[in-house]
Amino acid sequence: MIVVMQPHSTTEQLDHVVKLVEDMGLSSHVIVGTNRTVVAAVGDKRMVDKEAIETAPGVEKIVPILSPFKVASREVKEEDSSIALRPGGPAIGARDKIAVIAGPCSVEDRSSLLEIAHAVKEAGGIGLRGGAFKPRTSPYSFQGLAETGLQYLAEAREQTGLAVVTEALTVSHVPLVAQYADVIQIGARNMQNFMLLRAAGEQPKPVLLKRGMSATMEEFLLAAEYIINAGNPNVILCERGIRTFEDYCRNTLALTIVPAIRRVSHLPVLVDPTHGTGHAYLVAPMTLASIAGGADGVILEIHPDPEHALTDAAQQITLPDFRDLMQQIARVAAAVDRVL
Amino acid sequence: MIVVMQPHSTTEQLDHVVKLVEDMGLSSHVIVGTNRTVVAAVGDKRMVDKEAIETAPGVEKIVPILSPFKVASREVKEEDSSIALRPGGPAIGARDKIAVIAGPCSVEDRSSLLEIAHAVKEAGGIGLRGGAFKPRTSPYSFQGLAETGLQYLAEAREQTGLAVVTEALTVSHVPLVAQYADVIQIGARNMQNFMLLRAAGEQPKPVLLKRGMSATMEEFLLAAEYIINAGNPNVILCERGIRTFEDYCRNTLALTIVPAIRRVSHLPVLVDPTHGTGHAYLVAPMTLASIAGGADGVILEIHPDPEHALTDAAQQITLPDFRDLMQQIARVAAAVDRVL
Amino acid sequence: MIVVMQPHSTTEQLDHVVKLVEDMGLSSHVIVGTNRTVVAAVGDKRMVDKEAIETAPGVEKIVPILSPFKVASREVKEEDSSIALRPGGPAIGARDKIAVIAGPCSVEDRSSLLEIAHAVKEAGGIGLRGGAFKPRTSPYSFQGLAETGLQYLAEAREQTGLAVVTEALTVSHVPLVAQYADVIQIGARNMQNFMLLRAAGEQPKPVLLKRGMSATMEEFLLAAEYIINAGNPNVILCERGIRTFEDYCRNTLALTIVPAIRRVSHLPVLVDPTHGTGHAYLVAPMTLASIAGGADGVILEIHPDPEHALTDAAQQITLPDFRDLMQQIARVAAAVDRVL
Amino acid sequence: MIVVMQPHSTTEQLDHVVKLVEDMGLSSHVIVGTNRTVVAAVGDKRMVDKEAIETAPGVEKIVPILSPFKVASREVKEEDSSIALRPGGPAIGARDKIAVIAGPCSVEDRSSLLEIAHAVKEAGGIGLRGGAFKPRTSPYSFQGLAETGLQYLAEAREQTGLAVVTEALTVSHVPLVAQYADVIQIGARNMQNFMLLRAAGEQPKPVLLKRGMSATMEEFLLAAEYIINAGNPNVILCERGIRTFEDYCRNTLALTIVPAIRRVSHLPVLVDPTHGTGHAYLVAPMTLASIAGGADGVILEIHPDPEHALTDAAQQITLPDFRDLMQQIARVAAAVDRVL
Repeated sequence: MIVVMQPHSTTEQLDHVVKLVEDMGLSSHVIVGTNRTVVAAVGDKRMVDKEAIETAPGVEKIVPILSPFKVASREVKEEDSSIALRPGGPAIGARDKIAVIAGPCSVEDRSSLLEIAHAVKEAGGIGLRGGAFKPRTSPYSFQGLAETGLQYLAEAREQTGLAVVTEALTVSHVPLVAQYADVIQIGARNMQNFMLLRAAGEQPKPVLLKRGMSATMEEFLLAAEYIINAGNPNVILCERGIRTFEDYCRNTLALTIVPAIRRVSHLPVLVDPTHGTGHAYLVAPMTLASIAGGADGVILEIHPDPEHALTDAAQQITLPDFRDLMQQIARVAAAVDRVL
Repeated sequence: MIVVMQPHSTTEQLDHVVKLVEDMGLSSHVIVGTNRTVVAAVGDKRMVDKEAIETAPGVEKIVPILSPFKVASREVKEEDSSIALRPGGPAIGARDKIAVIAGPCSVEDRSSLLEIAHAVKEAGGIGLRGGAFKPRTSPYSFQGLAETGLQYLAEAREQTGLAVVTEALTVSHVPLVAQYADVIQIGARNMQNFMLLRAAGEQPKPVLLKRGMSATMEEFLLAAEYIINAGNPNVILCERGIRTFEDYCRNTLALTIVPAIRRVSHLPVLVDPTHGTGHAYLVAPMTLASIAGGADGVILEIHPDPEHALTDAAQQITLPDFRDLMQQIARVAAAVDRVL
Repeated sequence: MIVVMQPHSTTEQLDHVVKLVEDMGLSSHVIVGTNRTVVAAVGDKRMVDKEAIETAPGVEKIVPILSPFKVASREVKEEDSSIALRPGGPAIGARDKIAVIAGPCSVEDRSSLLEIAHAVKEAGGIGLRGGAFKPRTSPYSFQGLAETGLQYLAEAREQTGLAVVTEALTVSHVPLVAQYADVIQIGARNMQNFMLLRAAGEQPKPVLLKRGMSATMEEFLLAAEYIINAGNPNVILCERGIRTFEDYCRNTLALTIVPAIRRVSHLPVLVDPTHGTGHAYLVAPMTLASIAGGADGVILEIHPDPEHALTDAAQQITLPDFRDLMQQIARVAAAVDRVL
Repeated sequence: MIVVMQPHSTTEQLDHVVKLVEDMGLSSHVIVGTNRTVVAAVGDKRMVDKEAIETAPGVEKIVPILSPFKVASREVKEEDSSIALRPGGPAIGARDKIAVIAGPCSVEDRSSLLEIAHAVKEAGGIGLRGGAFKPRTSPYSFQGLAETGLQYLAEAREQTGLAVVTEALTVSHVPLVAQYADVIQIGARNMQNFMLLRAAGEQPKPVLLKRGMSATMEEFLLAAEYIINAGNPNVILCERGIRTFEDYCRNTLALTIVPAIRRVSHLPVLVDPTHGTGHAYLVAPMTLASIAGGADGVILEIHPDPEHALTDAAQQITLPDFRDLMQQIARVAAAVDRVL
């Protein structure tokens, strides 16, 4: 941490800052510059709230040097993490493999779910997604089938061998979802629901953590850090679009975060081009862009009859379009030395 | 809802859209324009997911006409809502009164909390805020005193008569918080935690709902709608800054939402200039701006010794600064025909 | 500037960075921390492009310490600047005075302009605004009366004594606008039109510089720095809303920038609540909020018949509403110890 | 256009709106709904400012149906535009070809420019970029070689046959730049410099138009419309990142706009991964993502010695890295049925 003093700060103010720094267990180095005096505070105290110093008299600002996340960073673990979706099952983050997880936005009924699951399996997907509990912006919208939905998902897994990925909306869902699913999804709206992060960290199944729609990369990795610190190292990150001023799409898919995370973290990164764009016609190009840009895979919403889907109709692609897209994914993956 | 057809859509596509509209229980009016044909769908079906039509062949886009929220709107209730913080106690949204709620970011210990509470009372505040459960971005930061904090808050209320406002972070906190507090706060990160919204709606105490940091006005009012629909009409809205590209402040305080909400909703609106700016030196001017701009009050973080505060040190103001600010609030309130 | 080295950087890399720093004429201080080594580069070389060092091997990032603007900053000039709109005329930034500049979006015809000018004068305004050249998003929209518009503005000044504020859209407009106007406005879309900034800096009339709709505070002050460096110290800043995800208003009025600029710069700051909100019904509350928040004044769009205005109809307020607003401004100004 | 009336609007207000609509030369259809009455205004009057109606009494809002751009849209020209960079030379927007334009941020000296140009040519690029006039945020930064830089670019073209792409910063640059360059670039900061757009439209060379950093897709296409309307149909669009809250990159590269523009416009679209990310290590993955996502090509900044570049050091890639990237581009292009 660097403490930058104001232009006309006094010696007493400087001494006070040095004392505050040392009271935190850090050592201090004072550097008198041409226009500013700065105090470099040395030591690894990520857990200390350093902003207190910002309020001390004569201080202009605090500049952090260390990133606030640690166990999610490459400093602590240099090699990429590869996370098995279930013991002995397919993994995400195995460098040469591209993972595709697909399924309906919501689990709507048993037969359509099974139809979709077989389509995912046949096309080369490794995971089946589908919401049993739906976080809906409007209280008037369909809210999901709850446990019945989870049972259908489990049945689809038995028939296909796909790993089931589904969302827990609140702490009390976690044990139930963990009972049926292979991977517990934490949605974008819950990325800073710290109680839920902790609950997901205290059970053994891998967690697919979606980026909040206004989360910085640092906040995203700190959310992963919550889960890891609670005891569960198996966190899969997922970019799903951020909120910006753009209005031709529901969100702005911020693909650059994929190589940016790669540089600072060992965790695998998926992309969700469905929520990341909000329109079916944009899903295929953004899926291919994600693969070419270095993502470890994608999570897609597909539906046999999007027009009659109960949720997110406008952004789900049809099963034939999904099959075509899988072939295109395979080609682009090969062009960047990976395989589906 | 207006369905806009693509330029070269066919008669069959148009007929199909008309059928979809009518299947939803809406009546349809086809208007053939110079460049586009549109289908106006008439009827109040806010609860229907209309985006399904967007995927029908030949459809360019859907334009909603009705706002998706209803019970929070002035269409349903024209006069302003005034919400008593406790039975017979002070109210927010009483048109001529400005409400000030103040207190520390976190409840840190009994004596400092009582000191603060008395300062709030003496300066003319009506509510005491203070976090017992803290949602912290970093897992390494102080997480709050939990129930002990709630007990201190309740004691402060007994001594001062202030209404206690404190946050519930998750569904399981709600009964506990409701037992001690007068008003349950739902924080910005939980604005779309729909399970929590519902739990807050199923208990009788008023709810202070903070705007999510990337929530549109419509999403904000839909979150209020969740609470009201669950049975609790006593929702107080609170603007607390949104996430933008600005970097001189932690958030961008979007004050314009105050008169904008006034126009479409009957619910009272507070502003939180502390989180809305993130720096102590910005709190006073933004507080006065909030009052002049039509807010029903403010919620402020104050601390006897911000430099040693356990959380949010950089943005809390001192007790003497708070007393001065209260006098300025009174003057600005008078200038817009309101009283503290 | 602080150069932060990567965790496993080598001694050679460090030596290379030290050499780069010293080649720039800066002195270097190496601090070996627990997790990082940093090089503090000392000296005032704002004019050097320091990002070159970011590409040197072993460097993680560069952290600037000094703000990049200088002559616009309080470090160079501590006391507030007060800028006379014309020699011996009214000033902006005179601490106790609130300035109101008002007028139509576009100069439409002579008689309506004169009517408006008299209304501004009578209500206590000091400046008349009105566009002669209009920057329109659509090539199909009304583009302004050009020099004829400037002549009407000059005539209105002769009749009323108001200072005329009008926009130059391009370098070649500057001499023409300077001939008729008292203050040359540079619009939001031109805030980083560096040729125009320079041209405005090379002539003697004060410049009203509007913030770009995605400009940071630093970029805003650097734009002012361009003008000042070109020889013209008389720059008046104007916040006019930024682009965010909000959709109930055309822009998000970022009022917090007013006290934030005050802290780092001596230049006066106005607010434009008309463009900053985009809707007439939001103008009055945001005007009052601006005054209470510490702005030196406002610039407003008013029109005798907004419904038939040629441009920006939806956001201009009527003359009677303007008169009422001026009375409210006077009251709020008094509450913050200022006068209209 | 759909005019939505307020809930309790009167018959007089409705009649007045109908009259306003018809005065604009549009025909009106009144639809009385359950909660709202709407007036559908029919006719192609993109050139009329319709927002005037928004101010009429009883009106809640206006919903446009037609997009405001026309000649840039697929409605007017269905097939993709292919734009030759010079008569008989290589084209952009030829469906199966991927175009690569590369060069230094600034033209710094003759020999390095020629070295770069040969590297671009040998690796398969079709265009040479390089700034002779630099729009710098800071007045203290290097501002470019001006006409000397243009002369070096022209010499590089003679030696290599590459098309020269360089920026005109202001109206008066246009004839000079047009004299030396094959393609005139309009930078992001000038995307709404309407005088410059017009000047570029009144000369015959193709224009590479960069998206403004806070421009919506509609504004971007309207800027292209300005150029086309002024007489020059040869507009190449270029996404270069938008301003958001993200802080790990200089801008957020909004790749989704590529397929979104494809759907509504016939103009070719390039991507600039250099400015779109701001860091050299992000350029390669985002280049490949752009190609996979459907861009017609990329424009890249390359430099023989980025560490000593005069501008934009941190984001330029080296010549060996560029050669490697070109081979990767070729592979990804092939995977989406295109060729370099």
